[in-house]
Amino acid sequence: MAEQENAAASKQVDEITQQVEDVILGEDGKPLSKKALKKLEKELEREKRKQERLAREAEERAARAASEVDISVGSYGKAKLNMSQERTGRKWTEVRDISEALEGQVVHVQARVQTSRATGSKMCFLVLREATATVQALLQVDSEAISKQMVKFASSIPSESIVEITATVVKPIEPVKSCSVGDAELRVAKLFVISDVVKLLPFSLEDASRSELEYQKDPTLVRVERSTRLDGRVFDLRTPANNAIFKIQAAVCQLFREYLIKEGATEIHSPKIISTASEGGSNVFEITYFKRFAYLAQSPQLYKQACIAGDFGKVFEIAPVFRAEDSNTPRHLTEYIGLDLECAFREHYHEVMDMIGDMFLYIFRNLEERWAHELQVVRRQYPSEPPKFGDKPLRLEFKDAVALLRNAGEEVGELDDLTTPLEKLLGELVRKEYGTDFYMVDKFPLGIRPFYTMPDPEDSNYSNSYDFFLRGQEIMSGAQRIHDPALLRERIKALDIDATPLEDYIRGFEYACPPHAGGGVGLERVVMFYLGLDNIRLTSLFPRDPSRVEP
Amino acid sequence: MAEQENAAASKQVDEITQQVEDVILGEDGKPLSKKALKKLEKELEREKRKQERLAREAEERAARAASEVDISVGSYGKAKLNMSQERTGRKWTEVRDISEALEGQVVHVQARVQTSRATGSKMCFLVLREATATVQALLQVDSEAISKQMVKFASSIPSESIVEITATVVKPIEPVKSCSVGDAELRVAKLFVISDVVKLLPFSLEDASRSELEYQKDPTLVRVERSTRLDGRVFDLRTPANNAIFKIQAAVCQLFREYLIKEGATEIHSPKIISTASEGGSNVFEITYFKRFAYLAQSPQLYKQACIAGDFGKVFEIAPVFRAEDSNTPRHLTEYIGLDLECAFREHYHEVMDMIGDMFLYIFRNLEERWAHELQVVRRQYPSEPPKFGDKPLRLEFKDAVALLRNAGEEVGELDDLTTPLEKLLGELVRKEYGTDFYMVDKFPLGIRPFYTMPDPEDSNYSNSYDFFLRGQEIMSGAQRIHDPALLRERIKALDIDATPLEDYIRGFEYACPPHAGGGVGLERVVMFYLGLDNIRLTSLFPRDPSRVEP
Repeated sequence: MAEQENAAASKQVDEITQQVEDVILGEDGKPLSKKALKKLEKELEREKRKQERLAREAEERAARAASEVDISVGSYGKAKLNMSQERTGRKWTEVRDISEALEGQVVHVQARVQTSRATGSKMCFLVLREATATVQALLQVDSEAISKQMVKFASSIPSESIVEITATVVKPIEPVKSCSVGDAELRVAKLFVISDVVKLLPFSLEDASRSELEYQKDPTLVRVERSTRLDGRVFDLRTPANNAIFKIQAAVCQLFREYLIKEGATEIHSPKIISTASEGGSNVFEITYFKRFAYLAQSPQLYKQACIAGDFGKVFEIAPVFRAEDSNTPRHLTEYIGLDLECAFREHYHEVMDMIGDMFLYIFRNLEERWAHELQVVRRQYPSEPPKFGDKPLRLEFKDAVALLRNAGEEVGELDDLTTPLEKLLGELVRKEYGTDFYMVDKFPLGIRPFYTMPDPEDSNYSNSYDFFLRGQEIMSGAQRIHDPALLRERIKALDIDATPLEDYIRGFEYACPPHAGGGVGLERVVMFYLGLDNIRLTSLFPRDPSRVEP
Repeated sequence: MAEQENAAASKQVDEITQQVEDVILGEDGKPLSKKALKKLEKELEREKRKQERLAREAEERAARAASEVDISVGSYGKAKLNMSQERTGRKWTEVRDISEALEGQVVHVQARVQTSRATGSKMCFLVLREATATVQALLQVDSEAISKQMVKFASSIPSESIVEITATVVKPIEPVKSCSVGDAELRVAKLFVISDVVKLLPFSLEDASRSELEYQKDPTLVRVERSTRLDGRVFDLRTPANNAIFKIQAAVCQLFREYLIKEGATEIHSPKIISTASEGGSNVFEITYFKRFAYLAQSPQLYKQACIAGDFGKVFEIAPVFRAEDSNTPRHLTEYIGLDLECAFREHYHEVMDMIGDMFLYIFRNLEERWAHELQVVRRQYPSEPPKFGDKPLRLEFKDAVALLRNAGEEVGELDDLTTPLEKLLGELVRKEYGTDFYMVDKFPLGIRPFYTMPDPEDSNYSNSYDFFLRGQEIMSGAQRIHDPALLRERIKALDIDATPLEDYIRGFEYACPPHAGGGVGLERVVMFYLGLDNIRLTSLFPRDPSRVEP
């Protein structure tokens, strides 16, 4: 401050001197008289002395400030790099746990500085963020502990730095609307930066956290391009919605397993490196495997069935699936997570189909109950309604679906696959007719399902296969599989498929195998459709598509 | 039976005729007198007539049997292929649930025929197997329901066929020692084969289920080679020990997650296709990725750290890991399952290390309690003791380990890595000294750890890194990681590593990152060492090594 004042004073002097040495005209534009000149010189002299005095005073103030004792020394600054030098046993409080209930207590918090805002030189407001929770913190100059220097330090901390603070929980005069913790704020006593931001942020987290609604209200707001976000994905993951999306993704896996373990299923881990492109030669990634070639598994289908032949009864797997499909669409990834299951049944594949239906209802219900906070955080940026569903999943036959669509005026072939637009329309028709967003379509035409699908016993145009739909989007596909090697060979021949790479698979059934059915879910798809998101890259941690293999 | 009797009679007649037509000597070896000859002819005639009568009677019996009404018709045979023709709603009983408590009840069971043994023509014993459970079933000819034909059908069922039976639970006269269900057996009323064995079994499941002890007692017993078993892995998985090994493997994953979810960790799924061979160029599989090359991830290390920089706090992942190491040893696989975790900590990496220690104890304790049956089944074929451990894991420093080994007379360099034999010896010394099979070794020399390992703050020869050991075998390796980009670059330079492929990784820390530590477990290794097995192929569902990519 002192230096700035000095600079201003000396600039003023310079300007006046310049005036004198140049032309020296009066206010009327004509050269000045001698008397007037004399007067001006006197004024100049006076002004010069005044400036000198101001400069002297400013210098004295600066000297005083420099020698002044900073009463906050040791209570703020940059902490040494944490190399685990000590373990104090101190109790740490998480931001989400701060509330009015802790009023008056001293807490220790580690969090990111989301924003830092000085008001004058005596006060600084910080918004601290930990995962999806935010709280307001305040530093105010006082005569006992908080110096101007400390407040200045606080106000200069760059966004996204990580700090460690000691603070007292106080009740704010009015609720803090801008933070997730509204009924309490922190009065900071100690403040240390424990990890620095050393580079310009790739984009503003605030911009990356806006909802479509905000952009509609104010079209001048900055939009962050998807590719920019994905290039800086490590940083992008910090937005509250992203943090919550991946907690929900983890929850879907947890609930899938909870349900199936309760049903007596065993988790398996099937190989991803396989010797032959088992499910059709195209769309498969080739690997150099020592002195030969191998391939990346396009699904655990053949292996989970092998486990049924191997007497595991019910199995499931959560693992990456690789598809070398050159599709740059909002719904395709080249690597995604498959939630797969396969179950031996006693009499009828509907035993398995019903169980899968109940499993989805279990997942949906528990998401809304146990992950309500995370859903709320996602829906703040990406508004969506929870899906509607009843106590039991609705089951339609493929024929019924065709009839519904035909009644709505669509031309639909009896044995043709449904296009994506038709599927979406079906979703709307089913919602209108049955009041549910979740339903199963059973008995698909045999011709549009894989070779290992069990034909319908009464009408060989159809098959014992099913898809599960959420809001008109397919979230699981499955079927009863052919467990009889003779029928399997017959179907392979009828479909004119090369049996050679399938010999190992068929052999698996030659030592007797129980009847079984199963299905597969794409994790990213089910999360995307549940949350009503418009691009699958939003639900993949580090998405892979034909043009993206990094970061 | 009638046919056999006929055959015997005609053979006897033939022999006598032969005697007559040949030389015809008396008992003293000389040719017979005429009288004697006459007598013999008479005897012959008598005998012939007797044989004819017997043959006639046998034929009549056979005719009677053929025309006899089979009272069991409709109660046995080969069932139609299950194409989900009907759903009866019948209650099915699992083999493991059969016990004395069900005495007198009629049950429906689906299981494999492990063995089928007829005693005479009126009785047949079956051993039925479902997963790891076996029960004895009995068919006995009676005048009301069970025909000879049905018993004959039962005795002809090939091993490993799957049958569906209706039976009454009875209490055996004495406990059935050869079955896992000892206090009950089944009296069969209906018996249908629902899935056939259509090919010669690749080996005997009985042979594949023997313990080393049995071979010691009887060295003539057949051994099944490992490669034969692995070639027929689908079949091999049916042995009770294998079935139980993979239930235990699933249990380890379940307990790992249970513990970490309770600790607030989030499950992640990091990409397996990566753009650069990030952790050193060697030992990495190359993929053809559209018009470029890509690689298979050798660990989720860099991505799980990125999630820490992305504010996930604590993360874990269970996923395949790929190593193109050309090692054909009992301990190496080219594809295995990594149990990885990474946690931000507040003050000291021992927060994370202690948590990992408690997690292992949680896994071990729960395995012994909740998976006692499966452990017993494995230990029947592969005997092992449960590991010894206390309430808290023992923590040694690397220096202490070196001192223990030196005291035992070993030459050990202060900053050298421990060889596998030294690690095993250390396990024995620790057991003797501290009475535990499970311990952590802390503060490894910096020089033998990866570049991202945080140096010890007091002695830069050492580092904030640790290994966890079970019976002298390393089951987890981990460390505090360097979260400061400047120090990271310094270490990369000091170790003369090419920083180019690591730029994305380092950049992840430039927007501030909390201090963090973590580690990785090889699932197959931890199961192998816990069960005291001698080859990692025993704990991989479909193992992959440099010479095996199938089945």
